[in-house]
Amino acid sequence: MTPKKRQGQLIVLSGPSGVGKSTVIAELLSERPDIYFSISFTTRQPRVGEADGVNYNFVSRETFEGMIARDEFLEYAKYVDNYYGTSLKVIRDKLDAGIDVLLDIEVQGAAKVREKCPDAVLIFIMPPSFEELSRRLHGRNTDEEEVISGRLRTAREECKQIPNYDFLVVNDTVSAAAGQIISILVAEGCRTKYHADMMEGV
Amino acid sequence: MTPKKRQGQLIVLSGPSGVGKSTVIAELLSERPDIYFSISFTTRQPRVGEADGVNYNFVSRETFEGMIARDEFLEYAKYVDNYYGTSLKVIRDKLDAGIDVLLDIEVQGAAKVREKCPDAVLIFIMPPSFEELSRRLHGRNTDEEEVISGRLRTAREECKQIPNYDFLVVNDTVSAAAGQIISILVAEGCRTKYHADMMEGV
Repeated sequence: MTPKKRQGQLIVLSGPSGVGKSTVIAELLSERPDIYFSISFTTRQPRVGEADGVNYNFVSRETFEGMIARDEFLEYAKYVDNYYGTSLKVIRDKLDAGIDVLLDIEVQGAAKVREKCPDAVLIFIMPPSFEELSRRLHGRNTDEEEVISGRLRTAREECKQIPNYDFLVVNDTVSAAAGQIISILVAEGCRTKYHADMMEGV
Repeated sequence: MTPKKRQGQLIVLSGPSGVGKSTVIAELLSERPDIYFSISFTTRQPRVGEADGVNYNFVSRETFEGMIARDEFLEYAKYVDNYYGTSLKVIRDKLDAGIDVLLDIEVQGAAKVREKCPDAVLIFIMPPSFEELSRRLHGRNTDEEEVISGRLRTAREECKQIPNYDFLVVNDTVSAAAGQIISILVAEGCRTKYHADMMEGV
């Protein structure tokens, strides 16, 4: 009754700017190095310190539009004249090999993933409070007050999409938040729907 | 955005005789002493070493049938001329106080709980294999061969009800099985449906 090799899980993480998502993801990947963290395709120019295939897959507009035409994206969007997208093929290959795949995408992209992959696990990371989110955004010391106000407004808008997510994780401490995500993945792996083979030959 | 005090979770555990469910439950309760383990009502006589309110709530047939008439059971059944049942009121009170409640009941009882409490979390505990289940049943050295064969047949029948459960936990080692159940409870607690209040005032 050992389960057959099953499909990997598609995990989508979203959360407002400043919530500490990157830190939670780093902690999660250090605990679960078997998870494949999906790298987006983009047409924007690499910034200093960014490497192709590490931060993004940097491609030409022509290449990107060809991928759109061939329906090769799980989701894509255009921001400030640049495309950003998640390759369906890369993810399908990993999932078919039984590897769990993690996507860090914003709320509109997550909604598109939900449509195309109903079994995807959607997790929204919340700050403990908006006051704390404001503190964290100010603490970066990198943004103008106006930019921070804009981020807080966007955060409130994004939070309205929480009902589209399966799980809500409050990033109070990074280790607790990563621990909750790991518990969610363990639990999802125990779902009976993934173990139909356990009933075979019973 | 701290979540309001919410309802406790109703957790149903089932699994074939010999799977080691009691040991898993003991481990779970030692890790999560906040969980209330529900004690069934029964009309059968206490056996040596059994205490009222500890192993069962021992009641008269008259009392039990009065409770049936007043629809006071979440589920009940009659085996070999004795009644066994789970009090709805006791469980409702605990859940309303935000306490998680654990029920150890067989597959028919679990199906009734699912009907009355759609939010209940149903977990089926499996042996690693039927060979291993047979070994465990023989290892007890307490039952006749015929009794063991009967238990194995019942186990196969019970396993056909697995699709009615949300989660499947293989009891390979007790600590791993208890750990998976704890992860399931953590994950269920993160479900967005329980955090509607997080979106209020956003």
